[in-house]
Amino acid sequence: MNAISPAPAERLVRVPLGERAYDILIGPGLIARAGREIAARLKGRKAAVITDENVAPRYLDALVASLEAAGIQASSLILPAGEKTKSFEHLMTVCDAVLTARVERNDAVIALGGGVIGDLAGFAAGIVRRGVRFVQVPTSLLSQVDSSVGGKTGINTHHGKNLVGVFHQPDLVLADTDVLNTLSEREFRAGYAEVAKYGLIDKPDFFAWLEANWRQVFAGGAARIEAIAASCQAKSDVVVADERENGPRALLNLGHTFGHALEAATAYDSRRLVHGEGVAIGMVLAHEFSARLNLASPDDVKRVEAHLKAVGLPTRMGDIPGELPPAEALMDAIAQDKKVKSGKLTFILTRGIGQSFVADDVPSSEVLNFLKEKHP
Amino acid sequence: MNAISPAPAERLVRVPLGERAYDILIGPGLIARAGREIAARLKGRKAAVITDENVAPRYLDALVASLEAAGIQASSLILPAGEKTKSFEHLMTVCDAVLTARVERNDAVIALGGGVIGDLAGFAAGIVRRGVRFVQVPTSLLSQVDSSVGGKTGINTHHGKNLVGVFHQPDLVLADTDVLNTLSEREFRAGYAEVAKYGLIDKPDFFAWLEANWRQVFAGGAARIEAIAASCQAKSDVVVADERENGPRALLNLGHTFGHALEAATAYDSRRLVHGEGVAIGMVLAHEFSARLNLASPDDVKRVEAHLKAVGLPTRMGDIPGELPPAEALMDAIAQDKKVKSGKLTFILTRGIGQSFVADDVPSSEVLNFLKEKHP
Repeated sequence: MNAISPAPAERLVRVPLGERAYDILIGPGLIARAGREIAARLKGRKAAVITDENVAPRYLDALVASLEAAGIQASSLILPAGEKTKSFEHLMTVCDAVLTARVERNDAVIALGGGVIGDLAGFAAGIVRRGVRFVQVPTSLLSQVDSSVGGKTGINTHHGKNLVGVFHQPDLVLADTDVLNTLSEREFRAGYAEVAKYGLIDKPDFFAWLEANWRQVFAGGAARIEAIAASCQAKSDVVVADERENGPRALLNLGHTFGHALEAATAYDSRRLVHGEGVAIGMVLAHEFSARLNLASPDDVKRVEAHLKAVGLPTRMGDIPGELPPAEALMDAIAQDKKVKSGKLTFILTRGIGQSFVADDVPSSEVLNFLKEKHP
Repeated sequence: MNAISPAPAERLVRVPLGERAYDILIGPGLIARAGREIAARLKGRKAAVITDENVAPRYLDALVASLEAAGIQASSLILPAGEKTKSFEHLMTVCDAVLTARVERNDAVIALGGGVIGDLAGFAAGIVRRGVRFVQVPTSLLSQVDSSVGGKTGINTHHGKNLVGVFHQPDLVLADTDVLNTLSEREFRAGYAEVAKYGLIDKPDFFAWLEANWRQVFAGGAARIEAIAASCQAKSDVVVADERENGPRALLNLGHTFGHALEAATAYDSRRLVHGEGVAIGMVLAHEFSARLNLASPDDVKRVEAHLKAVGLPTRMGDIPGELPPAEALMDAIAQDKKVKSGKLTFILTRGIGQSFVADDVPSSEVLNFLKEKHP
């Protein structure tokens, strides 16, 4: 085959999942090369590109041209941007578009966009014909370092976020770092929360490196590619250890139980809170809650908060503009979240920087009291 | 655990799929015992029962009582009966009901009904929280011998049948043979087409046994249980060899490519044609087409048709009441069916009774000519 060898600035992370193994390519210019990279790896010669109104004007033509040049017949579907697109209605629309394009099992659905498009298109790829091939072309930092890797797909319902979906691994992830230059500062920061998360889970050296080098990561270039590759590698390690989240994969939810509750409490209104901001506040809360349980030291809490604040992320519930519902309502959102087993709450707690662990017996009364205390 | 040992008349077929292995129990009185059998195998103590308007009045109360007696908290959802229920809209309704019941990963969705309810509820079980436990309580012969075993789930779209779904194995199948006594003759015969199919695929002795014993199978009792158990065992063997239909599992589609096209051509109108009847006609067509390609002998065609006719099944397109669309339209339905790879048609052909094989290079022109010739 004619797989292209990485250019000097490029990084390749292999996710070794047996017959579901795949490559993540990280570097500049990957959208222009997408057709060749996909043709070298997939048997099919049809693709349905799923994207949104924000991303399409910038990158859709370039991606389709690259596919066609490589002999891949491409159709495209442009959806509204935003979290509300992760709905049953849009899932139907995507499935219909994929079937209309006569995409068969060896052909591909390609997600061109952020986490919303990736989660939705990946879900459709997992259920059309009970599974067709899937390529992620993530266009946000958040999706490059998190949602495009690991095979979790899904949509939201009025019961909560990501409560309906499948595990469906991509066959290839193309993280084109050029696209990050057009992100707003706020979007980039939101993605950075997930980068910092990998350090906080189990890589204290990486967290220290970020404390020292975050300005270069924000500026772009080699440090940024390094940070993205390290994040993808960290995510890959966790996914390989526990593909279907029966145990350690839950570590990736550090900060997410509180974060999801805050997203639900702000009705997924991105003017008030985006996912990464919820995770940033959630990670500080998780460290504080751990300190309250005498697991982590108050100094670690301070260090986490100081770093996230330095890069410009919100760290307190009070940083969210507008009123929040009472602590009881936040608790209710947590209880309906999927990290619940037979009534007991599963939480990611920590013994310090890079020492997170899964606790599956946290009493909800403790969490509620803590939320009341921290409520602005 | 307190798993119940089978009563004398009962049969147990184990589907050995590693960590997804499960039991199929076949015999009388299983609905009344469902709660105990489920409680002995599943950790969760919540269940959402999905059923339809025809089945609910007969068996829902008994099933719910059995669950509650075993300490399983049961909710239920009653859907309209019929193929049209396998839709995105009803999938949403089922997912919502399962989430409202707060069914978690170790809890169960229970399908109480025929293939439509099993396929729909199984799909919901496969996607709510990215997979919860699933129990099949099939109430038609068709679902007891075919759709309840093997993990294929799905819905129909305007593009065709079962084009959206997942592989999600059940954790237990309870085939209560008492319920078959209330089926109409027509329904029972339709299910019998799939029983005969297992003989035609690769069990010539079973087909000969059916030729000799079909009256006893229709009459009920030990021969019926034996035929169902043999069918479940045959299906299990194929599924274990190829869980996700990359190869030999396609053999189960013997008669189904033609059958599905006829179902589509009659707009899934059960007054004209039900699935098993389409399969019966499709199996005769598959044998005739194989004879036309000089693979099978005309005597085998006659033998297959004679047996299906003897039990009262339709065997010719002309047996379907009303007008059929032209052969070209049937061909179009076949081409959109999922057994298509890069434009080539995959067909199940046969060299004789019990000698089926997967052919993946059948030219569509041959099929079209054959359909024109056989068109009434």
